[in-house]
Amino acid sequence: MGSTSTTSPYLARHLGPTAGDRSEMLQGLGFDSFQALIDAAVPNDIHAETLELPAALSEDQALDRLRAYAAENVVLKPFYGQGFHETSTPPVIRRNVLESPAWYTAYTPYQPEISQGRLEALLHFQNMVSELTGLPVAGASLLDEASAAAEAVALMARVGRKGNRVILDERLHPQVLAVAAERARTLALEVEITNASEGLVGEDLVGVVLAYPGTKGDVADIRQAIEDIHSRGGLAAVACDLLALQLLESPGTLGADVAFGSSQRFGVPLFFGGPHAAFMAVTAKLTRQLPGRVVGIARDAEGNPALRLALQTREQHIRREKATSNICTAQALLAVTATMYAIWHGADGLKRMAQRVHERACSFAAAVSGSVELAQEHFFDTVTVHTPGSAQAIVQKAEEAGYLLRAIGEDKVSVSFGESASEDDVRTLAEVFGVAAQDAQSGSCSRIPEALRRASETLTHPVFSSMHSETQMLRYLRKLSDRDLALDRTMIPLGSCTMKLNPTAGLEPISWPGFANVHPFAPEHHTKGWRHLIEELEQWLEAITGYAKVSVQPNAGSQGELAGLLAIRRYHVARGEDQRDVVLIPTSAHGTNAASAKLANMNVVVVKNDPKEGSIDLDDLDAQIEKVGDRLAGIMITYPSTHGVFEASVREVCKKIHAHGGQVYIDGANMNALAGIAKPGEFGGDVSHLNLHKTFTIPHGGGGPGVGPVCVAEHLVPFLPADPLSTDPHCPAPGDAGVPIASARYGSAGVLPISWAYIAMMGGRGLRDATAQAILNANYIAKALHEDFPVLYTGPGGLVAHECILDLRALTDATGVTATDVAKRLIDFGFHAPTLSFPVAGTLMVEPTESEDVAELNRFIEAMHTIRKEIAQIEQGNTDYEESMLRHAPFTAEIACSDEWPYAFSRSEAVYPVDTLREAKYFPPVRRLDEAYGDRNFCCTG
Amino acid sequence: MGSTSTTSPYLARHLGPTAGDRSEMLQGLGFDSFQALIDAAVPNDIHAETLELPAALSEDQALDRLRAYAAENVVLKPFYGQGFHETSTPPVIRRNVLESPAWYTAYTPYQPEISQGRLEALLHFQNMVSELTGLPVAGASLLDEASAAAEAVALMARVGRKGNRVILDERLHPQVLAVAAERARTLALEVEITNASEGLVGEDLVGVVLAYPGTKGDVADIRQAIEDIHSRGGLAAVACDLLALQLLESPGTLGADVAFGSSQRFGVPLFFGGPHAAFMAVTAKLTRQLPGRVVGIARDAEGNPALRLALQTREQHIRREKATSNICTAQALLAVTATMYAIWHGADGLKRMAQRVHERACSFAAAVSGSVELAQEHFFDTVTVHTPGSAQAIVQKAEEAGYLLRAIGEDKVSVSFGESASEDDVRTLAEVFGVAAQDAQSGSCSRIPEALRRASETLTHPVFSSMHSETQMLRYLRKLSDRDLALDRTMIPLGSCTMKLNPTAGLEPISWPGFANVHPFAPEHHTKGWRHLIEELEQWLEAITGYAKVSVQPNAGSQGELAGLLAIRRYHVARGEDQRDVVLIPTSAHGTNAASAKLANMNVVVVKNDPKEGSIDLDDLDAQIEKVGDRLAGIMITYPSTHGVFEASVREVCKKIHAHGGQVYIDGANMNALAGIAKPGEFGGDVSHLNLHKTFTIPHGGGGPGVGPVCVAEHLVPFLPADPLSTDPHCPAPGDAGVPIASARYGSAGVLPISWAYIAMMGGRGLRDATAQAILNANYIAKALHEDFPVLYTGPGGLVAHECILDLRALTDATGVTATDVAKRLIDFGFHAPTLSFPVAGTLMVEPTESEDVAELNRFIEAMHTIRKEIAQIEQGNTDYEESMLRHAPFTAEIACSDEWPYAFSRSEAVYPVDTLREAKYFPPVRRLDEAYGDRNFCCTG
Repeated sequence: MGSTSTTSPYLARHLGPTAGDRSEMLQGLGFDSFQALIDAAVPNDIHAETLELPAALSEDQALDRLRAYAAENVVLKPFYGQGFHETSTPPVIRRNVLESPAWYTAYTPYQPEISQGRLEALLHFQNMVSELTGLPVAGASLLDEASAAAEAVALMARVGRKGNRVILDERLHPQVLAVAAERARTLALEVEITNASEGLVGEDLVGVVLAYPGTKGDVADIRQAIEDIHSRGGLAAVACDLLALQLLESPGTLGADVAFGSSQRFGVPLFFGGPHAAFMAVTAKLTRQLPGRVVGIARDAEGNPALRLALQTREQHIRREKATSNICTAQALLAVTATMYAIWHGADGLKRMAQRVHERACSFAAAVSGSVELAQEHFFDTVTVHTPGSAQAIVQKAEEAGYLLRAIGEDKVSVSFGESASEDDVRTLAEVFGVAAQDAQSGSCSRIPEALRRASETLTHPVFSSMHSETQMLRYLRKLSDRDLALDRTMIPLGSCTMKLNPTAGLEPISWPGFANVHPFAPEHHTKGWRHLIEELEQWLEAITGYAKVSVQPNAGSQGELAGLLAIRRYHVARGEDQRDVVLIPTSAHGTNAASAKLANMNVVVVKNDPKEGSIDLDDLDAQIEKVGDRLAGIMITYPSTHGVFEASVREVCKKIHAHGGQVYIDGANMNALAGIAKPGEFGGDVSHLNLHKTFTIPHGGGGPGVGPVCVAEHLVPFLPADPLSTDPHCPAPGDAGVPIASARYGSAGVLPISWAYIAMMGGRGLRDATAQAILNANYIAKALHEDFPVLYTGPGGLVAHECILDLRALTDATGVTATDVAKRLIDFGFHAPTLSFPVAGTLMVEPTESEDVAELNRFIEAMHTIRKEIAQIEQGNTDYEESMLRHAPFTAEIACSDEWPYAFSRSEAVYPVDTLREAKYFPPVRRLDEAYGDRNFCCTG
Repeated sequence: MGSTSTTSPYLARHLGPTAGDRSEMLQGLGFDSFQALIDAAVPNDIHAETLELPAALSEDQALDRLRAYAAENVVLKPFYGQGFHETSTPPVIRRNVLESPAWYTAYTPYQPEISQGRLEALLHFQNMVSELTGLPVAGASLLDEASAAAEAVALMARVGRKGNRVILDERLHPQVLAVAAERARTLALEVEITNASEGLVGEDLVGVVLAYPGTKGDVADIRQAIEDIHSRGGLAAVACDLLALQLLESPGTLGADVAFGSSQRFGVPLFFGGPHAAFMAVTAKLTRQLPGRVVGIARDAEGNPALRLALQTREQHIRREKATSNICTAQALLAVTATMYAIWHGADGLKRMAQRVHERACSFAAAVSGSVELAQEHFFDTVTVHTPGSAQAIVQKAEEAGYLLRAIGEDKVSVSFGESASEDDVRTLAEVFGVAAQDAQSGSCSRIPEALRRASETLTHPVFSSMHSETQMLRYLRKLSDRDLALDRTMIPLGSCTMKLNPTAGLEPISWPGFANVHPFAPEHHTKGWRHLIEELEQWLEAITGYAKVSVQPNAGSQGELAGLLAIRRYHVARGEDQRDVVLIPTSAHGTNAASAKLANMNVVVVKNDPKEGSIDLDDLDAQIEKVGDRLAGIMITYPSTHGVFEASVREVCKKIHAHGGQVYIDGANMNALAGIAKPGEFGGDVSHLNLHKTFTIPHGGGGPGVGPVCVAEHLVPFLPADPLSTDPHCPAPGDAGVPIASARYGSAGVLPISWAYIAMMGGRGLRDATAQAILNANYIAKALHEDFPVLYTGPGGLVAHECILDLRALTDATGVTATDVAKRLIDFGFHAPTLSFPVAGTLMVEPTESEDVAELNRFIEAMHTIRKEIAQIEQGNTDYEESMLRHAPFTAEIACSDEWPYAFSRSEAVYPVDTLREAKYFPPVRRLDEAYGDRNFCCTG
């Protein structure tokens, strides 16, 4: 490496510091080159050989290549259905949400004071889901419909009566069945797949998952099945469709305990399968069982209403393997999009739209029913037709007319109507089925069973009838995003989250029709561009990680973990070592690690960390390995560790595990400290997942999308995620193969061009330099701050990796000032807080990333120094903690401009602690959240 | 009309009020339908028959049609040059300026307190232009290079020694020559077109316009010519290229008095000809002669630096026919784009880029010079080659290889290198010229004459070396736009400016490569899509205005006026009535009317307005007509008038003028009160211009782009603007034809898809309803406010048109509170002020447009009521004017949070005069501008 010169024309745009800054920063740490820094910071025994990637492209070259890929895809009118529907994204929402840095560069709203805008949007997602499903408690949001089904099964297994059998409705979409069945089997449940709507048989049931409507479009009365399961003490979960629910009675009204589905057709592009926000709602008594995030209405220190993430104690970062799910980032950006779509169309507009869609379907059914036999009498938007022996021929004929239809086997074809379907489409499609155009007639009869027609109201929340004009929507979106702090305004120095630049050149292509409007189940000859792009990306990730094979299917880091653990588990079982079910996890691990292990039905044994160095305690590791014996399935480690250090012993740890027949899972969350320098697949890992939304620049979107590719060594390749459509849900997956993990073969394909563009524009050398700069920036901050705030752990050479933990505990003991106080006070400086109390309570973990320039790093350092001086005032007895700015931060404009000023400190000290703030000041819209109040008063709608 | 039902699916998105709101609003005014309102407000004798337009499209349908048009265009690598160059818009700038509502929906920065962001960007445009041209005074910005040349000629004619001859360098681009020559001839100058760089002959010269480099690429030493003109007491203007100036000595250093050119190649797409910001810089002594806007550094009421538009007293709205030019809106959005491009690449990056471009050109010249003869020894980026008899064949061959080259006659071909040109391109192009690939060699020799190599520095302002990373640029753009108030946050109720919604569906297509990357001089078979779209748009505008023919060439309202007046003038001359050179203009007219008349070399005679009704005083009209006699060329009226009323006498006025042989020019600025209801071409107009950036939803872009199509009756069709490329600049245009008005045949073609989409989505009925709603909204406000602030003029039925003038004069007399005070106080309510003191001093003109919803209208009404109460406090003697909030508004966050509060009123009264502001508060970044200080201390760089 040595030189910082590079052939990547984009590199200098991605890195914050200039070459000149870099030299000075290196000098300040006593190094004369990146190589010298890396040699000192990263254990030499893990340094990788050069990274072979194609020559780096410029932004224009990358865009040209992507344009060529998009042009290779064939975009037909998608009348395919099966959980992915034609929809029209309103341009004002596309431009001002999906394409707006203020929305897409935001982080998950863990810091509620600077997240009120996205929290409001997500609250409305919950309002929408709760009202449409008729269930009081909704979250925001889940990863896709298939994993939501799996979560529903897991929920029922947790709380249902003691049973070991779950019934899955055979009318669920095939990909939903495939994922849910295998996830159920992983949890040691017996899976029965039947036409559950016809009623249930047998006992010992934890629950049933019903389809409403079914995958072929049929609308069945599920009330009997719900009664049946309730009479057996089990629960009923219902897969439903938000547009169909405009006309269908709500699952809640029908007695369901859980309702879930995908919100894709609410304005979110098909994206070749994702990202799409799934939803789930439950009854009140299941509140604490709801998986994923929930926004709650609480209040702030002034007693004003304020939003926050509620019920966090049931999430993986608190409850670890006892969490309700392993879901961490979900699909916030897409949930916001779907919500804004619902607000845009409004309660009445959506109902009219559903009616129109239904009429088209009726019209088509009426036209063809004289010539062909319909597979069902009742339907909402999807008509399945018997076409004995000619399904493929009809699909082919439709293709020639510009339509994508779904063949179901050789003898059936499904036609699914989306919001833009016209009577012209009905006529053309009727012709495809051999009905002369003039025969097609507008049908206004309803094909929804009378008993299931919606009597309950749909969207009564005022927001769903508040806005109809583009100007209103534009201003509402601006108003909400202005309340929040995102990367477009400030560094977000969140340790372990890698909030780095999201290059615009990678983001532009995702809304191009050639990428956005491709159905995930379109035939291969329509999706060549997508497949080329994905293949190339997977190969590049293989080169970067040193693994044999990568699958991009997992649509979040958590799903990548699960996929990786399942690969390990299935590998052992395939070798006849069923007993290997224990996974070792260090104390410092991400909570998702443990939660994922649990979902993989593995047992967790904790390994201690050395209290001084923070590394894995090798003695304890030996002890645990011994104790676990031949039950050892493997270990999950993060590298560099979540303590922000390159543990020198990593190879040794891996060797110990391997020596005892275990597999090594290396969590790739911190890949931004490795890319181009070291390869987990080379230094001991058998499997890793990556977070493309961290190291590989997919934006965090205010809490997702994420992509969590799973990367495996040669011997685990057979166990990579299977295509959900080539999996037979009725039989357990073959022991020597993988299981599907997401609704679509390539998961959240829609955002992969972002990572593709990043790697293409950086090249091997560029990635190396970015990693080195990330490490340099972290050490720059650590050095500047360690006298004020001790850096808890350091690795070789006294250096940290790409992040550092600032220890506040001694100061807290001495003054009362907590890490939370500092986090909130940073808001007054216009900063998003660092990671709070993870992995060590009472600390702040700072990860600046390579994209922050020296001025911004210095601005942060100045803020922290200033805060330290504020703490000193308490230390020295000049100020009482209870009266301090730290205790009362943050300050809103309203309080700062109020006529009364009740504080001991001055307004200008509170609001302009440093002078640069006078140039551009962010005021949070609320004061500090009253967490205790929120905990006591749960409310997730309103 | 009657019913508000419509077949436009988009209409309800465009209109603010819902159907329900509409009924209530109509009822409040005593009407039961739109038709009843229109019947009462609009003179019946001008009502038009139905408006025939195609059925309205949905957003998706419009986008599909536009996509098909874009696909009809052939995009080659543009090596054509001639003033339009290949350039690469950095994605971060494309997304966050060109595609950002915060930038593009902003108004011209007349209200400096809420415009500091765009003023800063434009100041840097001036810094850039001033430094690169080596001249101290630069403006921001002009309309295109050709009109800038015309402005330079006009400037020289104004201030040069008394002469009547101007020399234009024959090496100027043909379109520049064509426009400048005809504009000079219009001003009665004798035009000589010679190779001016070889020195000047003769006396009686006001100035010379030199090309640097010339259109064929040759770089000539212009110092002798500059000396020659100076020795004759004339001035020298130099057309130059910002990229070439990285390597060429600055015009200022060479002695030029004026430098101008296009900033297009600084990151602004080709756009089939525009919009592109032209620039101009002049010597200090010409400061007050500079045409167009100038940003000045002044200070605010606290003494802090603050920006504003300076030297406004020389602009058309003050000086009318004595103004330095008729330019009003220019190309602010494109000037911002070019500036950000310069900041993005920085001083060093631009120099390297210029060097690289030059090397490619040298390399190409070296490769082909063995086989073909070069037309010149010295060049920067453009190499012209002698190709006797085979120019077309070579261009054809290049086309097959994917390149667009320029044939100059039959015997020469020009190859112009842009920033992305590679050595591969050089090789391919050499092959096109018959040179084997291997012969092409990298040439590093310079083809710039030693005497002209740049010795002076280029961009020394720190901003041009402050930013290199995408994150920095992203945040800088956000920071600047956050300082400003635009339509994405608030109503901008600017009378006569029609700040209505800019539909996103129309804005998205303008950055599609199929539209954005088309060279204006590409052959017809490459530009079919563009031509179809433009033809359709022109036809629609003909239908809407009732004229025989429309030309979209004028790239601003001011240019449309000029084109229209030239049509009138040339019509009279063609009929042998040369003496008809007087144009009547009412007192209330826009200043541009008079300024445009002056540019058309016509004399202005003012007609009085009735002091009570505001209408044209018919007696005075008769008197003036009589006085002017057979010198009457015509009248310029605005309809509805700038007084915001439908004058009942408009047909009579037209008849009077026609009866005396004059032509009627109806200014289309207020077309938003007519579209779909009345057609100027039907009720008496011979010619009009439209403002597509008002009625037809092109965004104002913070001061441009605009498009000002000129619309004429049958007898004026021959006089529509000519294609600049089919005009022979050496001979005056034939008397029976028009003259070119802009650099490109279709002017600012790039933004025409916006208006196309608007009309396509609205349809005839939609346009009618929008107009009716605009009138209804204005009357709603007038009625709500007239008791607090008298509405100065009303028309039939006591109704206003689409805007109303609130008269503050009595209140000013009584209390001291001025219209300016109210305008500034509105900022504290989060509003952009209405139009201030136009057309009547001491008033505010309010135009809400149809896009504002009832809540926003009411928010404005509440603000005005609250302000009225604040004024009442002074009236009643409770507050002294000098101590009042009105006198001190607006209030920054800094002052509102200051430790000392020096005012008699409270902080919360100042900052939160109404409670809704607590939900979302805009703080201006500066306090009220100190205009007097700015006037005394002119400074346009820094």
